Amino acid sequence: MFETAELGQRVTKEEFKSQEPALRDGLLAVQRELRNAGLPVIIVMAGVDGSGKGETVNLLMEWLDPRGVSVNALSDPSDEELERPPFYRFFRQLPARGHMGIFLGSWYTEPIRARVYRENKPSDLERMITEIVQFEKMLADDGALILKFWLHLSKKDQERRLKTLESDRLTRWRVRSEDWKNFRRYGRFRRICEEVLRKTSTKDAPWHVVEGKDPQFRYLAVAHIVMKCLKDRLSVFRSRPAPRPPEIVPVPPNQKEILSTLDYTKAVPAVEYRERLQELQGRLNLLARKIHRKKHSVVVVFEGSDAAGKGGTIRRMTEAMDARTYQVVPICAPTDEERAHPYMWRFWRKLPRSGQIMIFDRSWYGRVLVEAVEGFCTDEEWVRAYPEINDFEDHLTRHGTLVVKFWLAITKDEQARRFKERQETSFKQFKITAEDWRNREKWELYESLVHRMVERTSTSSAPWTLIPANDKNYARLQALQTLSDRIDAMV
Amino acid sequence: MFETAELGQRVTKEEFKSQEPALRDGLLAVQRELRNAGLPVIIVMAGVDGSGKGETVNLLMEWLDPRGVSVNALSDPSDEELERPPFYRFFRQLPARGHMGIFLGSWYTEPIRARVYRENKPSDLERMITEIVQFEKMLADDGALILKFWLHLSKKDQERRLKTLESDRLTRWRVRSEDWKNFRRYGRFRRICEEVLRKTSTKDAPWHVVEGKDPQFRYLAVAHIVMKCLKDRLSVFRSRPAPRPPEIVPVPPNQKEILSTLDYTKAVPAVEYRERLQELQGRLNLLARKIHRKKHSVVVVFEGSDAAGKGGTIRRMTEAMDARTYQVVPICAPTDEERAHPYMWRFWRKLPRSGQIMIFDRSWYGRVLVEAVEGFCTDEEWVRAYPEINDFEDHLTRHGTLVVKFWLAITKDEQARRFKERQETSFKQFKITAEDWRNREKWELYESLVHRMVERTSTSSAPWTLIPANDKNYARLQALQTLSDRIDAMV
Repeated sequence: MFETAELGQRVTKEEFKSQEPALRDGLLAVQRELRNAGLPVIIVMAGVDGSGKGETVNLLMEWLDPRGVSVNALSDPSDEELERPPFYRFFRQLPARGHMGIFLGSWYTEPIRARVYRENKPSDLERMITEIVQFEKMLADDGALILKFWLHLSKKDQERRLKTLESDRLTRWRVRSEDWKNFRRYGRFRRICEEVLRKTSTKDAPWHVVEGKDPQFRYLAVAHIVMKCLKDRLSVFRSRPAPRPPEIVPVPPNQKEILSTLDYTKAVPAVEYRERLQELQGRLNLLARKIHRKKHSVVVVFEGSDAAGKGGTIRRMTEAMDARTYQVVPICAPTDEERAHPYMWRFWRKLPRSGQIMIFDRSWYGRVLVEAVEGFCTDEEWVRAYPEINDFEDHLTRHGTLVVKFWLAITKDEQARRFKERQETSFKQFKITAEDWRNREKWELYESLVHRMVERTSTSSAPWTLIPANDKNYARLQALQTLSDRIDAMV
Repeated sequence: MFETAELGQRVTKEEFKSQEPALRDGLLAVQRELRNAGLPVIIVMAGVDGSGKGETVNLLMEWLDPRGVSVNALSDPSDEELERPPFYRFFRQLPARGHMGIFLGSWYTEPIRARVYRENKPSDLERMITEIVQFEKMLADDGALILKFWLHLSKKDQERRLKTLESDRLTRWRVRSEDWKNFRRYGRFRRICEEVLRKTSTKDAPWHVVEGKDPQFRYLAVAHIVMKCLKDRLSVFRSRPAPRPPEIVPVPPNQKEILSTLDYTKAVPAVEYRERLQELQGRLNLLARKIHRKKHSVVVVFEGSDAAGKGGTIRRMTEAMDARTYQVVPICAPTDEERAHPYMWRFWRKLPRSGQIMIFDRSWYGRVLVEAVEGFCTDEEWVRAYPEINDFEDHLTRHGTLVVKFWLAITKDEQARRFKERQETSFKQFKITAEDWRNREKWELYESLVHRMVERTSTSSAPWTLIPANDKNYARLQALQTLSDRIDAMV
């Protein structure tokens, strides 16, 4: 694969100078158009040590308008980053719509390094490659243009380059001892990179291998590719089909949907409830402390119909815990910063640090429930939300974060009863709006969506717990018990 | 001062139970009203070790609606936090409008601890107290209700409490070895806390000293104070006077304003410019590397009239630097998350990590320039922006961050010439809008505001550099030279 980048390509100074003005003007113009179109651009600059990655980024920054371009030179992750899944640090650096993010050091760096030094197994690398492909697909689906450059040097050229840098007082600092250590593994490094590049060259995010030896050649090659891809992206964007609202196919009438199979008569009498509540809360208290002490993290999701009792159940949990160990995050409409990023970004940024329990009162499942029903997302966004959610939860569970998901289910009659009760109790009136009554009209649609949600997102590592909640006592105890059991199995 | 909290106050279980329901209902109701009014609430829970701070926060969380309340249990700062001024971590945890933030461990913890252990001098503590008072004043001015609780225990009671905790298998973990170490310094600790509490009990943020011995007494006392203060805050909020737009008094005609004293004829011919530019860029390049290596950080601010050449000057700087070492942040309208926080929050969150140069293309000075002129802020917000800006820059310089501020000044005629040129050059047309022409009509108002800005915010540690920029060559060289000189003096 890299032979094509060992041809000794050269560009003379004169040729470079003659092409520079038009390229610079063109890049500035297309950058402006992208900003106006609100498209994010992600540039990964990777390659062999000493191949001129930093210099090439410098040139791009010189030629582009530096406003709205961020260069992310990632070195070691900070402790805040280490406490979350590995992709956390990449998510937090993602450029907003209309902006450009250049990554010097990226999601490719660590998987390749670790494999070269045999710190992980071939199967680990395979898994990481899968994660990378999913991540880039999600970005591309969200509208991002992803440009990945691999600057290549042959072994001989790399050696020459490192020696040249070392011989100059002004550039000596740029050669680190790791560079020579890496150089001695050139063959292995090359083989692994070839594999990674091949497997991550997707339609959405292909690699551009560029010969790194001659600076002028490298600069022109990269700039031309950037310009061409930006232009292509713009023209695709302009001719994109009009977005359609989700087309939700209800569960066929001859087929049972999952919520109808729950036993809504389950109930716990008051005396028994009080006793078991105290017992379960005591247990949860000890377990939450253990989580805190052992630096684990937990993500709890509460979803359910309106008036199913999410708030009350969450309160029975938080009552049992030390305030230092948990946080409740109510999910409402996204902020404008959140809207300027991929859908899952807003949840990535809320991930708990080690030792913390984060309780989401509604969650990323909004995308496949209310947003789909109300047409707040497109059909395409809705359809890809399922795999994106699974990927997100995979990141969490692989990092060791426990994911516990509750659906509190009530019957349509019970909801009507609770709505009326709310309207009649003065201090509960604020909880009920015209929208709640409107949502009821779509009850069957929601039932179908819950069925599909469970079908697609209940996994062995992050299963859904569906709780019939017509009786609040029963539901609360069930949720407490489930959370404790899951924590118990982990710590 | 603490004698009043050693009276052995007690509340019986029955009395507590009888008061609980009304208090809980009341707290929930007033919390909802505060949310609707969009007022942020900050609760600091401080006091003697073992006085029940954590338990009291737990009770508040049990009684309040946990949605929209965050508990910030601050322990050691993360490395990302250590790379910024000490208040960075408190700014990033501030609750948004309508939300409540409870701090267990706060801006009081470290100053008191360090003084008890003689790690800082009395004058250091004095300075920290000044910072705290400024910080809380800024929060209060911004509409926050600040509730500070000090839970007190006499020496004898503290000893008893620590022993009780230690004797129970379930609570033993809560007594850290530091607690006994602190206990042996009880007298000194008490004296220092007394001083700190006295000096930070301001009208905006008074301390509430509560006897910590009897849990029931402590819970009721805190809950009553919270409820009363929230109610008072609401009634003050409801009767607040209508905000007025800034009343800007122009510099009297018989008095020179500072921009008129610059020599706008200064110019550098093209040949000399090219030579000196290269030389200065080379120098800046080396200095920026030094910054990076030595882990310093730099904040550069660019302000100036429209078309004064900020963008071009910034480009001449970034061209000289390695893309890993700098970032350009264009400041436009705030996002809604930014609007939900105090004005300076959006700049705190953009502060550079160690080794980074952050270039602000427009800045926090917008508040005392365009926002004041256009009435985007109130008179009161405008007036207090000057001291708030000085405080902010003090935080930076004391942390060791270099602050370099440029005002690029052009004459009114020169601006007209540049506007016309922009209109006539196709690829520059996007840079000129009707608003730019409208702003020109307020030229004299802006001149007065610049005069005042320099008068109030040009300090010895963060001086303004005013550059006559009718000649772009001259302005660019001046800015490059100044930045390099300032960095040189630091590293």
